Amino acid sequence: MFEELTQFYDWFAARECANDYRVNVQSLDALDGWYTDPRTGNVHHRSGRFFSVIGVRVSTENRRPAAWSQPIILQPEIGILGIIAKRMGDSIYCLMQAKMEPGNVNLLQLSPTVQATRSNFTRVHRGSAVPYLDYFRSPHRGRPVFDSLQSEQGSWFLGKRNRNMIIEVAEDVPVLDDFCWLSVAQLAELIRVPNLVNMDARTVLSGIPFLTGDSDRAGAPLHSLGHILSWFTEVKSRNQLDRTVVPLAQLPEWERSGGVIHRPDGRHFSVIGVEVQASNREVRQWSQPMFRPAERGVIAFLGRHFAGTFHVLVHARTEAGTADVVEMSPTVACIPGNYAAAPEAERPRYLDLVLGASATQVLVDVVHSEEGGRFYHAENRYLVIDVGDSLPVDVPHDYCWMTIDQLTGFIRYGNHVNVGARCLLSCMTDLIPQEATS
Amino acid sequence: MFEELTQFYDWFAARECANDYRVNVQSLDALDGWYTDPRTGNVHHRSGRFFSVIGVRVSTENRRPAAWSQPIILQPEIGILGIIAKRMGDSIYCLMQAKMEPGNVNLLQLSPTVQATRSNFTRVHRGSAVPYLDYFRSPHRGRPVFDSLQSEQGSWFLGKRNRNMIIEVAEDVPVLDDFCWLSVAQLAELIRVPNLVNMDARTVLSGIPFLTGDSDRAGAPLHSLGHILSWFTEVKSRNQLDRTVVPLAQLPEWERSGGVIHRPDGRHFSVIGVEVQASNREVRQWSQPMFRPAERGVIAFLGRHFAGTFHVLVHARTEAGTADVVEMSPTVACIPGNYAAAPEAERPRYLDLVLGASATQVLVDVVHSEEGGRFYHAENRYLVIDVGDSLPVDVPHDYCWMTIDQLTGFIRYGNHVNVGARCLLSCMTDLIPQEATS
Repeated sequence: MFEELTQFYDWFAARECANDYRVNVQSLDALDGWYTDPRTGNVHHRSGRFFSVIGVRVSTENRRPAAWSQPIILQPEIGILGIIAKRMGDSIYCLMQAKMEPGNVNLLQLSPTVQATRSNFTRVHRGSAVPYLDYFRSPHRGRPVFDSLQSEQGSWFLGKRNRNMIIEVAEDVPVLDDFCWLSVAQLAELIRVPNLVNMDARTVLSGIPFLTGDSDRAGAPLHSLGHILSWFTEVKSRNQLDRTVVPLAQLPEWERSGGVIHRPDGRHFSVIGVEVQASNREVRQWSQPMFRPAERGVIAFLGRHFAGTFHVLVHARTEAGTADVVEMSPTVACIPGNYAAAPEAERPRYLDLVLGASATQVLVDVVHSEEGGRFYHAENRYLVIDVGDSLPVDVPHDYCWMTIDQLTGFIRYGNHVNVGARCLLSCMTDLIPQEATS
Repeated sequence: MFEELTQFYDWFAARECANDYRVNVQSLDALDGWYTDPRTGNVHHRSGRFFSVIGVRVSTENRRPAAWSQPIILQPEIGILGIIAKRMGDSIYCLMQAKMEPGNVNLLQLSPTVQATRSNFTRVHRGSAVPYLDYFRSPHRGRPVFDSLQSEQGSWFLGKRNRNMIIEVAEDVPVLDDFCWLSVAQLAELIRVPNLVNMDARTVLSGIPFLTGDSDRAGAPLHSLGHILSWFTEVKSRNQLDRTVVPLAQLPEWERSGGVIHRPDGRHFSVIGVEVQASNREVRQWSQPMFRPAERGVIAFLGRHFAGTFHVLVHARTEAGTADVVEMSPTVACIPGNYAAAPEAERPRYLDLVLGASATQVLVDVVHSEEGGRFYHAENRYLVIDVGDSLPVDVPHDYCWMTIDQLTGFIRYGNHVNVGARCLLSCMTDLIPQEATS
């Protein structure tokens, strides 16, 4: 445990020095262990495991444009993202890991205790065993505080889910190299540091209120639970999401050239290859495809107080890979550069309110990396903005005001809150009391 | 409103006399408006709407046998099952409809205020408008008390869901022919009458506790919410459900002959055709395929008290059409006749405890019809049995003890509780205080 965060930073720097990582961008044509199906253009691992890059054609009334095609990652396995938590003294501590992911701009970030795909933990790659995995396999060695299947980026994953877990233990837990205890209060501070707490950690940490008991605080929400659930059901019923898997080689507006799959107009993202060398991973060397966004994105909640209680404006959003039509999502989520030249009517709703916010309105403003195991240098600026009464009670039919507690409550049941909204909630934990309620 | 239920029975008998219904079994080869695709053997409506009968091949570790093929109904549209509720005096009343469904053994049963597929309410069939539909379209003309997407029979429907709604109104509601107000207490009594309250009404009525406020009562559950959610996540993560749509003509063990799709061994169910004439439906004459079970089934909860609170034993069950691997299901759900000659090891777990229960153990015992719009003479015996301490705390990994309130709570979020369990819960409403809490 660290008395002061400066001690943590020293430890983290030492972890960076103790291990050696190299990542090189490589042609998709030359990835060891991967092949491109000559008939479809889809990219697969030779084992048939891990993941594939395929094409998808989407149509839905809930987006503009209402139809498009794109590459997408197919990874049907359910992985585990798990944090071991323990009460020590007056505080709750989480066992975190300093973990290299090839897509991170700074390679090493803080991850959950366990972050493993099923291929990892069943050891398809014949690497070493995943430490601490036993705490998360049934029967659990502790109290399951938070345990649900959560979606990941619907814009790049086709229906992928991971099991998000927080297990509270009473027993002593050995602390291995690359692992450390951080208190919930320390994590609330570190999550405001750019590119330090990785996406997998952030999504699990969104369940911390179920551990601290802060998810059931009284408040004065604008809308009842019944109203919000009805709103969510209405949006799902009103819209359809038609999705067809198509060969990657046949996507209009996309082409493969120079070992990269990309759009000639440079928008959205490209699919590249990387070669990785790491001294402390289950496997020390591997190659893989990754998704690289065109530029940095914005993920933001607009919020305001109603009768003294802070609310955020939740969007029922459809992505190409969304499992059930829509999920509760941030007010705004996009790459602004995609719309630089777009006419007013085509700009994402509320984007200008986000970009034009004054410093006094900004409650959260931090750049984080997305899943560094699949996405290359994918950063988003996470923002929470208090717009005051410049936004009214009445909002378009696919938006709904909720308190932070209400939105957090839906996380528990899975299939409700998307990864962007969960990550934003985890950045707001210092708006919530941090001490253990025991 | 009826002071006494005898008045209701008089009214109901009068509705039977006021209308004229005829249902004849007909060859699948001769159904007006339907055709069989000569390539696949699948059965479709000529409009491309309503529903289709297709084949499916299933494999999952969560069932015995672990793989099978069967016909299944594909009906991707989300329909509305909605009840208008109103507080009058000290009671809450529901507006119910006397509705003919061709598959019901007695044709006329009590249904929700609105029971309409999307094809119905968008008037694909060019029939008359669906009465009271406006109350359930957004913006609602009342308070949405219960509004979620709920699965239907996973053994016969491929991922079908309907929107279950209870809307509480303050305004006066005109009562049309074939409609009547029944108090929640009267419905709790009527739901114990065989073949009277139809499946669509029963599933919506499982949400009545959200109206009466009886879903949040204090109790002493054996397991915390966190534990139960973790159990559910564990079963979903442990098992996979692999499902492939296959041509109906190519299902092993099934054949089409004499205008019927069936198994030569007579087990499970068959697909038949019917021709219907009704004087009071949106359309007065039509033909359609229907599923006919081999014989009457059993749907049962085993229950017992722990520390003075009644719990039911919930099964995480996989059906051919289950949307997300498993749903919270009754302890037992099967057609016993399918297993009459089966060796001990192949008999459904706990079936013998259900069939061997003594009269003093039986809390609920009533025969109900399943969805009479798709299933022909499909009856199940619904049972709740108090087994006392003959069942222990520890149960197999795919079962979990829950209180009635806990199980009811999951209904609210959709995608958790299957239709059999919801119908059993609706039969237990008289275990719950009936009066309005206002």
